[in-house]
Amino acid sequence: MYIDHPASFTDYYELTMAQGYYLSGMHQRTASFDYFFRKVPFDGGYVIFAGLKELIETIKHFRFSEEEIEYLVKEGFSEDFIKYLKSFEFKGNIYSIKEGEIAFPGEPIVRVEGNLLETQLIETLLLNVLNFQSLIATKACRIKFAAGEQSTVLDFGLRRAQGLAGIHATRAAMIGGFDGTSNVYSAQRFNIPAGGTMAHSWIQAFDSEIESFRTYCKHFPNSAHLLVDTYDTLGSGLPNAIKMAKELEKDGHKLKGIRLDSGDLAYFSKQARAMLDNEGLNYVKIAASNQLDERVITSLRSQGAPIDIFGVGTRLVTGDKTPALDGVYKLSTVNEEPTLKVSENIEKITLPGKKKIYRYLNDDQTFWGDAILLQNEKILERIHHPTFPAKKSSLNGKPFEELMEPVIKSGKIVFNMPPVDEIVKYKKKRFALLNPEYKRFDNPHIYKVGISTRLMETRDNLLTLLKS
Amino acid sequence: MYIDHPASFTDYYELTMAQGYYLSGMHQRTASFDYFFRKVPFDGGYVIFAGLKELIETIKHFRFSEEEIEYLVKEGFSEDFIKYLKSFEFKGNIYSIKEGEIAFPGEPIVRVEGNLLETQLIETLLLNVLNFQSLIATKACRIKFAAGEQSTVLDFGLRRAQGLAGIHATRAAMIGGFDGTSNVYSAQRFNIPAGGTMAHSWIQAFDSEIESFRTYCKHFPNSAHLLVDTYDTLGSGLPNAIKMAKELEKDGHKLKGIRLDSGDLAYFSKQARAMLDNEGLNYVKIAASNQLDERVITSLRSQGAPIDIFGVGTRLVTGDKTPALDGVYKLSTVNEEPTLKVSENIEKITLPGKKKIYRYLNDDQTFWGDAILLQNEKILERIHHPTFPAKKSSLNGKPFEELMEPVIKSGKIVFNMPPVDEIVKYKKKRFALLNPEYKRFDNPHIYKVGISTRLMETRDNLLTLLKS
Repeated sequence: MYIDHPASFTDYYELTMAQGYYLSGMHQRTASFDYFFRKVPFDGGYVIFAGLKELIETIKHFRFSEEEIEYLVKEGFSEDFIKYLKSFEFKGNIYSIKEGEIAFPGEPIVRVEGNLLETQLIETLLLNVLNFQSLIATKACRIKFAAGEQSTVLDFGLRRAQGLAGIHATRAAMIGGFDGTSNVYSAQRFNIPAGGTMAHSWIQAFDSEIESFRTYCKHFPNSAHLLVDTYDTLGSGLPNAIKMAKELEKDGHKLKGIRLDSGDLAYFSKQARAMLDNEGLNYVKIAASNQLDERVITSLRSQGAPIDIFGVGTRLVTGDKTPALDGVYKLSTVNEEPTLKVSENIEKITLPGKKKIYRYLNDDQTFWGDAILLQNEKILERIHHPTFPAKKSSLNGKPFEELMEPVIKSGKIVFNMPPVDEIVKYKKKRFALLNPEYKRFDNPHIYKVGISTRLMETRDNLLTLLKS
Repeated sequence: MYIDHPASFTDYYELTMAQGYYLSGMHQRTASFDYFFRKVPFDGGYVIFAGLKELIETIKHFRFSEEEIEYLVKEGFSEDFIKYLKSFEFKGNIYSIKEGEIAFPGEPIVRVEGNLLETQLIETLLLNVLNFQSLIATKACRIKFAAGEQSTVLDFGLRRAQGLAGIHATRAAMIGGFDGTSNVYSAQRFNIPAGGTMAHSWIQAFDSEIESFRTYCKHFPNSAHLLVDTYDTLGSGLPNAIKMAKELEKDGHKLKGIRLDSGDLAYFSKQARAMLDNEGLNYVKIAASNQLDERVITSLRSQGAPIDIFGVGTRLVTGDKTPALDGVYKLSTVNEEPTLKVSENIEKITLPGKKKIYRYLNDDQTFWGDAILLQNEKILERIHHPTFPAKKSSLNGKPFEELMEPVIKSGKIVFNMPPVDEIVKYKKKRFALLNPEYKRFDNPHIYKVGISTRLMETRDNLLTLLKS
């Protein structure tokens, strides 16, 4: 499970509000909340949604344990309320887009329905899980996109991950498109291919570089990636690696690869490739690591660096330079009536009512644009820009898909949670349907997300009422 | 404990290297490793060291469980090696500076001694724990410094934390100087003051703003912070908050505060202060939140914004804009002989041998500068710049303190791990001894860290040997 005590993995105000709702009898009002983000991280054009499995499983186990009850007593929460919490379970409904789906700003990609108290109580947990995994899946997708389908990209981030974030960063990286990880903990738990060979300390521990290579290859004759930059990459590391490759060939083995971890990776990878090929070792792969991200990899690619495997650490697992997805959780109905938050910032005005998302398709099945519409709407003729309503698009009978599906009904999980490898496949299929102009790193085209005429009118009427 | 299965919370290559050492009989060689970082995050002048407690406790429980053994069997690790791992325990020594200590680039602030295998195996865990907590303690210290001692700074970050990183981000924030948190999970476990009142959804859930305030104050008459920006901050939120304050006064209670969460915080806080004071409500505190960090807070302070409480979330707990401390773990001796890594990048050449740190003091007891010296050195006459050795400083009999102390000896914890509030006190005391020029945000003065003549000679002799 995501966290051992989910009910306390929360902001304190969720509990004060819950007590307030309970003591004033408002906890029986129904409510719905939307999860959405406002801004695409990394100045990019899309987000890869991830984290649903952890969220759903954890909500299923959302209980107040004895320790938590004790804490709430000590903090002075009311006896009646605490009694209520002792048997608390989430009994509401959750609708969501699939893990691995491509998502865009403003779309209510998860909707939570239930009573006001239960829907409020899970807020912090939901945000914590979904914001982070979606952030890293998105970053991973960008890095894999830069490296290209023919390359292997590996997660090397555990040592620089934000503490325990490393666990789910690895899962999210796979969903985003990574091919494997160095992280043993997550590999075990999520059934992810793991690997790794040697650090500089291995080489330093021996009296000579060649002895260190020879010892490693003796014990791992078919899987050795020799790290060649401990002393002198071209003067010693590569010549020794080539020597080892020849020794392995004599015993019927093949050196798997070499790794570059410092210096100019474009220059060294070209030199290394030439030296290896010159010795007939064109099967020996070149791996590179050291502060890589999608932009560095793009630069290496444009320079023709012959790198087969990219080990990406820090900048993947921390989501550098946008270390958080700004996902929020906003109340959209109370007692089945639409509600909204006005805010001093116009773009923070929320969309009222229970909503769903339609994704419209081009003739070649690629994504044309998305509509946010009210739950009880069926067919739309047009969509409007969320904040400039005069800007509208006709839908003209375009084919569409509905993106959200029920995942929890009355507290019970009602969908089959796919394992990571199936999510990976789904993401790949969907990402192929997103046109290239949304994928570029600099000034990506903005994907069209509009709102239905009725949703717009519902919002504007509410705003008028509030202003009057 | 930090993680349920510490032995698998590791990079795969730690295990392949360990197997290589074991099968080649090299695991009995002694070794020592240094933990240090190369660059101060946030372009700052110092780092606050944190995370030692979690590291030490987790190393104490570092065992290979049945699940892990099963995994290693499946992965094809050698039977002999797996047998060895079944009874593996860390039996080495660890020396460290204190949590809450001020640290600088290049200083070996943690040293691990033992056999080559055990010292290598804990690398990833050590880096993961120390890098993240030190990063956040440093960020927190900067934010508290910007806000000023008289202000209250609260961690609101759980929802935007990098997943489970939220747990220890809160602990680290306290060490760095925060006053409390919204994070219930961490508050319980680390005995940290927690608090929080209401979200916008609370206000939206009621038919009117005043009704929502009244209901909250009924149940929390002495601790209410009313959120005033749901509809119209100055037109409705504040007038309603003032009304509530008056109603509370009639019943002998006092409104604790109001919170601003959008719009121009400088403008709104000044308006709010004036409106409150005008009604004799000068005791009502003003809290502010929304994308705060040390630079925004500095700007608010310079504009004279009368904010008493800062709620800081995303940018604290993710360490925005430097989401990782670049701490590394480098081999410094093998079989008691000094060793180093050369690297293609000069600044990545490591310092050989077992080392310690002296901190030299000015006459007023403030920090003058630090020396890195060999373990068996006693008194230094001068220190040298680590990469420009011609640049040197005389120490002239200056008083000094030794910073590192043993925390684990032969696998046993040998120091009393202080609770968070004691670490907080220590950090505060130490931070007061760091002169202001190192604390400013733009171009902070670079704190002097030099190496001893003997350390320099040891390094240079090794380099000459390697080049010959």
